Amino acid sequence: MKQYAQMSASELSALKNELEGAFSKYKESGRKLNTTRGVPSDEQLALCNEMLTCLSAEDYKSTNGTDCRNYGGLDGIPEVKKIFADLLDLTPDEVIVGGNSSLALMFDNVSVNVSHGVRDGKPWQSQGQVKFLCPSPGYDRHFTICNYFHIDMIPIAMGNDGPDMDIVEKLVASDPMIKGIWCVPKYSNPTGIVYSDETVKRFAKLKPAAEDFRIYWDNAYAFHGLGNSKEEIPNIIRLCEENGNPNMVYVFSSFSKVSFAGASVTCMASSKSNCEYIKKRLTAQTIGPDKLNQLRHARFFRDAAGVLAHMEKHAAILQPKFKLVTDTLKRELDGLGIAQWTNPSGGYFVSFDSLDGCAKRIVTLCADAGVALTPAGATYPNGIDPKDSNIRIAPTCPPLAELKDALEIFCLAVKLASAEKYLSA
Amino acid sequence: MKQYAQMSASELSALKNELEGAFSKYKESGRKLNTTRGVPSDEQLALCNEMLTCLSAEDYKSTNGTDCRNYGGLDGIPEVKKIFADLLDLTPDEVIVGGNSSLALMFDNVSVNVSHGVRDGKPWQSQGQVKFLCPSPGYDRHFTICNYFHIDMIPIAMGNDGPDMDIVEKLVASDPMIKGIWCVPKYSNPTGIVYSDETVKRFAKLKPAAEDFRIYWDNAYAFHGLGNSKEEIPNIIRLCEENGNPNMVYVFSSFSKVSFAGASVTCMASSKSNCEYIKKRLTAQTIGPDKLNQLRHARFFRDAAGVLAHMEKHAAILQPKFKLVTDTLKRELDGLGIAQWTNPSGGYFVSFDSLDGCAKRIVTLCADAGVALTPAGATYPNGIDPKDSNIRIAPTCPPLAELKDALEIFCLAVKLASAEKYLSA
Repeated sequence: MKQYAQMSASELSALKNELEGAFSKYKESGRKLNTTRGVPSDEQLALCNEMLTCLSAEDYKSTNGTDCRNYGGLDGIPEVKKIFADLLDLTPDEVIVGGNSSLALMFDNVSVNVSHGVRDGKPWQSQGQVKFLCPSPGYDRHFTICNYFHIDMIPIAMGNDGPDMDIVEKLVASDPMIKGIWCVPKYSNPTGIVYSDETVKRFAKLKPAAEDFRIYWDNAYAFHGLGNSKEEIPNIIRLCEENGNPNMVYVFSSFSKVSFAGASVTCMASSKSNCEYIKKRLTAQTIGPDKLNQLRHARFFRDAAGVLAHMEKHAAILQPKFKLVTDTLKRELDGLGIAQWTNPSGGYFVSFDSLDGCAKRIVTLCADAGVALTPAGATYPNGIDPKDSNIRIAPTCPPLAELKDALEIFCLAVKLASAEKYLSA
Repeated sequence: MKQYAQMSASELSALKNELEGAFSKYKESGRKLNTTRGVPSDEQLALCNEMLTCLSAEDYKSTNGTDCRNYGGLDGIPEVKKIFADLLDLTPDEVIVGGNSSLALMFDNVSVNVSHGVRDGKPWQSQGQVKFLCPSPGYDRHFTICNYFHIDMIPIAMGNDGPDMDIVEKLVASDPMIKGIWCVPKYSNPTGIVYSDETVKRFAKLKPAAEDFRIYWDNAYAFHGLGNSKEEIPNIIRLCEENGNPNMVYVFSSFSKVSFAGASVTCMASSKSNCEYIKKRLTAQTIGPDKLNQLRHARFFRDAAGVLAHMEKHAAILQPKFKLVTDTLKRELDGLGIAQWTNPSGGYFVSFDSLDGCAKRIVTLCADAGVALTPAGATYPNGIDPKDSNIRIAPTCPPLAELKDALEIFCLAVKLASAEKYLSA
């Protein structure tokens, strides 16, 4: 197979014609394939259908006697606090159980720090232009929160073991207006990489110029390994404690991709002292999250081991989809010098890098042929990928046959965009 | 029966001794009775137990095909939007369905107006010291939200047909820093009164000095009548529209006291234009509320008529409790010149006024005898009742026998505190 860079103009032209011919057939077929979002499939959701009926007219009380139908309780019933605590290797008083959206927990947490300050500190908004470090490519909705609160975003390069910590350490230590950093430490969105032990340790040892600097540790894929050997990352809360930064990190976790994506339970974890502080705000903010839905989760999963066993069932469904993606990309694109991609061992995404300047074109070509992809640039702050090369592939939702179709179209689009690029160079 | 004010010192002394004797027996009994919160009873919660099991492994889709288990949907499934719209006499696009806490909807709404401004207006926080009008006695958690956001609270006297509208109109028209008013228009918390048609119309016709003034219309007891003839209030959203104030009001409603207090669905209603504006924020804030719980409500109640029929069952349970309260107060306290109270035709509370300066003492006396009441002053901004006379009685939760006990102790405490007051005068 010849690398595109080594082809002559006439070879490229011939290739382009051939690709356009193949592509036009797809365009006419009227397909509608969607791989935009990291959404579980029907088959995955069905794994939990028992949760729809697992309570009864006699079963609505928590172990501590709380009637989960009634008012009361801001931070979760004991059963669910314990499940999260066990999964995250924490104590229940380091856990606050939330509603069905961990995004809402993060939004609220940023909101209150902007308006009221971190604990008894000055509100971020009264200190000047707030900045967050944003390892990129990253999760678009983290960046949306920053946008909403007019927080400047500083992109940080992502490597195979996490963000570029030399830069992170330097910036955090020197600029007191840097108040936060977004992290997805395990099976990162979208690259799928897992932070190395060394990276996690360096996070815990940060010496921020801002006393009110906080790490937003979105452990959204904490239990979402695909392979046989599950990855583990060090306990950031314990490490922060040991390094004299006990209150520096907020951990977020969620069962969105464990039980029902739209009707799960979530949690926030931090030092006991941070949790106590946060609960005071919750008293003003809410009557507390839905305890019946917590009880459903407790009944269905029983304990942390039950959650982990359940995740094996998800992995069994997802593994073939991820394999199809990486196999197809390898078969179609390997050796052409026009693409790179990740081979994640967990999470919900494959991160794809085209030749510089081709990502938007690829997404447009796919859209023309009925395949919806995550918009190019979405994985970067303000939607701007400086190289216009990153595309997030979300293989979890479509059935295998549809995914196969979508990937064939995608690979054609990559080839066509690459040929166009070399021809116009 | 002789009025306390007409008793001689020796008569009062003898009475006080007698009351103390009666009271000491209760103190020794070690009772623990709680009438602090407007919480539904076990019996009421059981009315909805079918909702615990009304979905199934085959029933999780909304009429529009939405899989309620998965992600997607910010403003509610069509069935539930329609139920709220029908109940409130609105269209579904004037309704945003929320999670299980209408308090959270109100908190968020105030929060965003403080930080980002009303629609495209200036953030409240950047305009100076924000003030809210607070009809009092009122709902303590409204006042807590103001406190949290450092909003000054101006108490407004409550009459039998709503807040003193002469004062409201005057203040709102003259002070551009008055940005909001809290209203519980139907079976008001705690007085139980219903705003008159005239009051509602005057609200809709307000001419605020602040363009970004908003009415927070917490219709928490919209369907919560106790008698046979249900009260109705005019449609504030339509009236505002007709009076050139289409975006001036946010309506909040909730099934907290319809289905399960801790696991219900809630809504916010406003002009279509306001709803569109709010949905943009929700995109940044959350993945959207739990749609499965919405579907449970749709299946269980079917439609607005189903909700209203269900409310008759609540009324049948609550009526005897309210009757016990007002009958006991009448039997024990009428004609003594030491108390006044409301006879609400709906809602969750009876509002009680003692002689000035006696409320705290009565609450303390009751606590000594094992009866927990809402703290005196809680129904006023900053917890300060200038007359120290208002006590909120919440009769819904305790079983009738316990409520009977609590009321006997309460009446004794009222008499004792009143005798003490006249003796020390």
